[in-house]
Amino acid sequence: MANEREVTIYDIARELNISATTVSRGLQDHPTISKKTKRKILDLAEQMGYRSNHFARSLRSQKTNTFGIIVPRLNSHFMSSIIAGIENAANEQGFSLLIAQSSESSVKEAASARTMFDSRVDGLLVSLAVDTTDLTHFDSFFKKNIPVIFFDRVQQHESSVNILIDNRQAAYNATRHLIEQDCRKILHITAPVVQNVYKDRLRGYREALSEHKIKFREDYVLITNLSQEAGAEAARTILQMKPMPDGIFVANDSCAVGCMLALKEQGIRIPQDIAFAGFNNDPVTKVIEPNLTTINYSGYEMGQVAARHLINHVRDVSFISSTNTIILRSELIVRASSLKKGSK
Amino acid sequence: MANEREVTIYDIARELNISATTVSRGLQDHPTISKKTKRKILDLAEQMGYRSNHFARSLRSQKTNTFGIIVPRLNSHFMSSIIAGIENAANEQGFSLLIAQSSESSVKEAASARTMFDSRVDGLLVSLAVDTTDLTHFDSFFKKNIPVIFFDRVQQHESSVNILIDNRQAAYNATRHLIEQDCRKILHITAPVVQNVYKDRLRGYREALSEHKIKFREDYVLITNLSQEAGAEAARTILQMKPMPDGIFVANDSCAVGCMLALKEQGIRIPQDIAFAGFNNDPVTKVIEPNLTTINYSGYEMGQVAARHLINHVRDVSFISSTNTIILRSELIVRASSLKKGSK
Repeated sequence: MANEREVTIYDIARELNISATTVSRGLQDHPTISKKTKRKILDLAEQMGYRSNHFARSLRSQKTNTFGIIVPRLNSHFMSSIIAGIENAANEQGFSLLIAQSSESSVKEAASARTMFDSRVDGLLVSLAVDTTDLTHFDSFFKKNIPVIFFDRVQQHESSVNILIDNRQAAYNATRHLIEQDCRKILHITAPVVQNVYKDRLRGYREALSEHKIKFREDYVLITNLSQEAGAEAARTILQMKPMPDGIFVANDSCAVGCMLALKEQGIRIPQDIAFAGFNNDPVTKVIEPNLTTINYSGYEMGQVAARHLINHVRDVSFISSTNTIILRSELIVRASSLKKGSK
Repeated sequence: MANEREVTIYDIARELNISATTVSRGLQDHPTISKKTKRKILDLAEQMGYRSNHFARSLRSQKTNTFGIIVPRLNSHFMSSIIAGIENAANEQGFSLLIAQSSESSVKEAASARTMFDSRVDGLLVSLAVDTTDLTHFDSFFKKNIPVIFFDRVQQHESSVNILIDNRQAAYNATRHLIEQDCRKILHITAPVVQNVYKDRLRGYREALSEHKIKFREDYVLITNLSQEAGAEAARTILQMKPMPDGIFVANDSCAVGCMLALKEQGIRIPQDIAFAGFNNDPVTKVIEPNLTTINYSGYEMGQVAARHLINHVRDVSFISSTNTIILRSELIVRASSLKKGSK
């Protein structure tokens, strides 16, 4: 039973005693077929479990109406918001999504790209793994002119479009805010600076320091995997430092929260002893006490923009080749965790 | 260029001056082809951007090696953990995932099911929308013996398997724990009780009350959408109640956290005035102060179990028809939010 024969238009035609051509036209809402006949055909098709021949149609049109998505991991608030945004925009326009996670490994990223290439996706949306240093595993897409859009974690490529925020500017704003709150010993917690997002945030942090004549210290940059646990571990390192920093800018919120909780446990007062700023505006920023100052940018909107851009390209409405980079808005949201000035 | 002709085995054969049969066999790692020739064929295939004829193969084998997933929403911590677990298990075995969100609407759920049916997924994994009352929109799958597995939010169907935890028992345990902490006026915040998860949690709550001779009060059950904002709104209702409850069991963590934050703002002490228990063990439970007592069950593991079960079924290793329901473990994790006894 499990391998039951597929229902064809011939089966429907036989059952209704009409021609297969009529059935085919009826299913495609052809104007020469009467409403009554169409209704009969559609009802029987539904009842018999007929499936439109998606594959055969794909072979003819070379389109699958499917996009591939590869993200570092699926279970982060930011990434799942992006995927929800992509799904919303794609679904509205009749596109389905094939989804894979690279688990932060470029090797797995390459394997997923290969699978999606073989599945003939009409386009690819990728946020790069933390260790991806080149884009050769996407060459098969570039060669075939299948559009590839990188979002958030991106690399430049002449044949693709990048969608991201101005990470340098956002990090500069967060760091400058800490300086304006009278912080002078500002530490930065980040990930290995291979990817643009971390490279640019480090750059913005350094620029703000240098502009305010604060010397950059190598030992004030902690490289972690940015998890909440890594934040707690960073706190242990920080507690050993002499002198301790008076401000910390963290490249994401969950790591900032892990660090804050661990420092608070040791009696460190936030923001009086150490002021904090994070990145992403995850919901947890409004649960932690004091609430966390952070950079707000909407993953959901980034996902929608990426999907709409890809859809327009596939439909030849816009031309991906003339667009190189799309920069989305971001903003500093100041909350109690950084308001050192005036607090005691 | 965008609609470049597809590279075929004939192109590779011509280029290497060998037969198409040899190319085909080489690509399939056939033993009659020498290693050297295979290497040449594979290298050239890669270089020319050859794609194995996935569709044609699918038509022959009736398999697409793709599973469909439909979830209420993608951007909740619990659901994205489940999807990460499914992806991990499916990817390991060479299955790809088509993903859609119903946005808690049974109409959108039905449309997604139709798309996935037409895409000929080998199996379907579904967590039901909050308003789904019957399963007729999955009939096309049942008729064709395409396996359907429901997880977490499930309904019984003779042709499908349900994977879930014992929600009644978990809710009973949470409520009994509040009673043991000397709570006598225990309120329950939940969602419309259409879906099993909320129905069963309400049942467990009532059982614990009745067993301890505490009268059930209709006005102590608040129906919300369980968002963090809904929790804050529930707090406003609770503050008006005379007398106020002394314990609250919430059907998920984010709503519990929203309620706690709003009550704390009004000077209510947790757990001294009101003790709290949530559900899911989201990371936020360890950020809120006091940390939230909750029911722990792993979405990631539930996803893995669901995918492995589906893979085994598709491969005829296990027989879905003989399995009806798989119950996964859950446990009460007691934290400071509920430890009313002895606190003052």
